Amino acid sequence: MNVKLVVAYDGSGFHGYQYQPGVRTVEGELRRALTKVFDECPKLYSAGRTDAGSHAVGQVVNFHMPVGRSLPLERLVTALNANLPEDVVVRQAKSVPDSFHARYSAISRWYTYVVVECERRPVFLRKFAWHVGKELDIISMRKAAKLLEGEHDVSAFCLDPARVTSKRKIFVVIISLLTANVITFDFVAPGFARGLIRGIVGSLVEVGLGRRSPEWIEELLEGYPKRAPYWAPACGLFLREVMYPEEI
Amino acid sequence: MNVKLVVAYDGSGFHGYQYQPGVRTVEGELRRALTKVFDECPKLYSAGRTDAGSHAVGQVVNFHMPVGRSLPLERLVTALNANLPEDVVVRQAKSVPDSFHARYSAISRWYTYVVVECERRPVFLRKFAWHVGKELDIISMRKAAKLLEGEHDVSAFCLDPARVTSKRKIFVVIISLLTANVITFDFVAPGFARGLIRGIVGSLVEVGLGRRSPEWIEELLEGYPKRAPYWAPACGLFLREVMYPEEI
Repeated sequence: MNVKLVVAYDGSGFHGYQYQPGVRTVEGELRRALTKVFDECPKLYSAGRTDAGSHAVGQVVNFHMPVGRSLPLERLVTALNANLPEDVVVRQAKSVPDSFHARYSAISRWYTYVVVECERRPVFLRKFAWHVGKELDIISMRKAAKLLEGEHDVSAFCLDPARVTSKRKIFVVIISLLTANVITFDFVAPGFARGLIRGIVGSLVEVGLGRRSPEWIEELLEGYPKRAPYWAPACGLFLREVMYPEEI
Repeated sequence: MNVKLVVAYDGSGFHGYQYQPGVRTVEGELRRALTKVFDECPKLYSAGRTDAGSHAVGQVVNFHMPVGRSLPLERLVTALNANLPEDVVVRQAKSVPDSFHARYSAISRWYTYVVVECERRPVFLRKFAWHVGKELDIISMRKAAKLLEGEHDVSAFCLDPARVTSKRKIFVVIISLLTANVITFDFVAPGFARGLIRGIVGSLVEVGLGRRSPEWIEELLEGYPKRAPYWAPACGLFLREVMYPEEI
């Protein structure tokens, strides 16, 4: 049985999602829990990596249940959660077609980036937001964000621009005031190259601070060697949901 | 000059507010920062202690500015914040009458307790809420909460019942659904004896789980040796605000 898991984690205690020997990673913890449950570790596929310090509400992974060690899905969730640390949780398990692959079957990804405007440091959000500490002009940022929607050369915003050889599509960018002084940036796209969202948020905040006009974003969309001015910190970034065709 | 500070902190990394040698406390950090700024530590008064693991959005402290070392208040806030760790922040400083005392001048305190109902552990709220993991009946809890308002013998809910010798007044208890699966309990009272809110929340949750009727609260209000069934964990508790007469 091919099993799809939806996993949430507080990334602040991890060196990112992807397994690396010798450091604490989310995949490392999932592998450890799977090994406890099955006495062996099935190969694990994920919808994508997340950076060190970034979070996930709806990361998706899949694996094939080891032959002869099958478990009812609800018991599997309970067993995995009992063997996972308190900063990772399996929210859901589902049986999916054999051909399902967490990464390649995905149609799109939804990410949210959180920014705090207020001057004093936000003690409760310090691991879950970028503390900009200044008021941002949402109207200007929204104008700039509109320019990002569609198919563009986004290499100027990416951390490995040389690897971004084709144009990328961004379905939608939504900027909202979540509550007083907390602004969220929502992005939906088929996929995101490394650093893309953090580069975009860094640039949009430049616009929000009034240091650049919204139209300046068009210059960055001319692509590498143009570069975003800076990359917003990883701690503000949440992988919210990975979308698949309806039948999955 | 007598200075009133409003302080917020994430209590998860502290052994409570009150100074204790050899362990990390909020007061210890405040004293250290004040010493850095003034080269000496003025005596510090607080509106009240908070338990290990409990938080504050609006703790209030006061101290008298050392003679000859006076600082403009906005600079004082900046200097203190520069010398405080990332889980404590001074939100505000204000000059108050010499007679002001953070504890004795207070008229009332507002506390909020946060409970999470959902079955899976809430990775992002794990240090900021009590994970009950079951659905609670808000209507019953509200009925029970109504019985608590007014002047009563609350010793059954307190951790040191023998020290609660007089009746205590609770102005209001408000139970709200903050968002799906997150319930908040708000309490306003002139003061709270040790463990009172945690004992009350533990009892209200018994009612919310359907294990007890709302009227059972009246039995507990007969006072010690009656005892609340358990004390809700400290991590869900936030000191929201300390109220003073209007002129302060």
